[in-house]
Amino acid sequence: MQMEQRFRAAFINSLSGFKSINLLGSKNLQNQSNLAIFNSVMHIGANPPLMGIIVRPDSVERHSYENICETGFYTLNHIHKNIYRQAHQSAARYPRDISEFNACGLTEEYKAEFFAPFVKESNLQIALQLKETIKVQSNNTILLIGEIQHIFLPATAVQKDGFIDLECIGSLAGSGLDAYHQTNKLARLSYAKPNQEPQNIE
Amino acid sequence: MQMEQRFRAAFINSLSGFKSINLLGSKNLQNQSNLAIFNSVMHIGANPPLMGIIVRPDSVERHSYENICETGFYTLNHIHKNIYRQAHQSAARYPRDISEFNACGLTEEYKAEFFAPFVKESNLQIALQLKETIKVQSNNTILLIGEIQHIFLPATAVQKDGFIDLECIGSLAGSGLDAYHQTNKLARLSYAKPNQEPQNIE
Repeated sequence: MQMEQRFRAAFINSLSGFKSINLLGSKNLQNQSNLAIFNSVMHIGANPPLMGIIVRPDSVERHSYENICETGFYTLNHIHKNIYRQAHQSAARYPRDISEFNACGLTEEYKAEFFAPFVKESNLQIALQLKETIKVQSNNTILLIGEIQHIFLPATAVQKDGFIDLECIGSLAGSGLDAYHQTNKLARLSYAKPNQEPQNIE
Repeated sequence: MQMEQRFRAAFINSLSGFKSINLLGSKNLQNQSNLAIFNSVMHIGANPPLMGIIVRPDSVERHSYENICETGFYTLNHIHKNIYRQAHQSAARYPRDISEFNACGLTEEYKAEFFAPFVKESNLQIALQLKETIKVQSNNTILLIGEIQHIFLPATAVQKDGFIDLECIGSLAGSGLDAYHQTNKLARLSYAKPNQEPQNIE
């Protein structure tokens, strides 16, 4: 509790381990688009297909949050090596009437008659519709639950059992507040059963 | 919605991107210890220092959930290359009276007068006290919010601005349901400001 505020933020943000990093695309009813990087995207469930994000409405994330509440639609887009610097830049505090797509050098893409913009440069794009808004009382953050409406990715990245090879599409991992990492697969391991050592899945 | 169930689980679980992987240590009031691997640990906030996990009470995670509800205490422990196969094995459905520590070949460690067991082999150990239990109505999963009580890690892994070098302590990333990855840092980037390109932090 005696840590200096920025030290503390960097330290505590590192503790959970590696994180997903995604660009969240949204638009308000006046067609003003917004793009923001999130490192809090999580799997919630497969059936129905649900994903969650943690938002801090008093931060730079508030434009994304307002657009999602206003319209119900948003996209999540994986980040690869060639766009991570642009993605990081989307965290800057741009005024409401500036689109981070333009400011950061990324391209809005509209398809599948979906309201919110995808990031054209991304290799894995997900369209979501807001299903549930949950307040975390302990610190007034909000968990948004969205249901997957569309998924776009290269068919070659999907293995025959459904596993998506994220290294094949170049998705990066994050750590702390500002670190970006490539990954190198050690193994996939077979379904764990008592008294049976897990085997590598080839 | 027409995907076969296991294909669907592997596919949807891959979509959020890379995940943290942690071993959750707990104990019931009869001193029966439990260990389970979680890939849903997330940062919730730095002040107060809060972490979240998603649990599915109808799954193998129920023993951890019951112990946390019964006692209020649990630990999270990072996973490195030398223990990831043991960590994966903790997901097997062992009976209630078998400790996964013994069954998987990992060591219970008790310190700092904390009730729940740490994983001795882990390089980053966190002690948590349950603060809040939040139900996700959309699919009956539960978000548990815990407040950090103790943190154990090598001092050399903490950089002068508070950032923890997870590669220095060998923490792994996960993807999908069963993949384990080492990481390779591309860069840390400076705090994003409008009209200023992010610089590498050395």
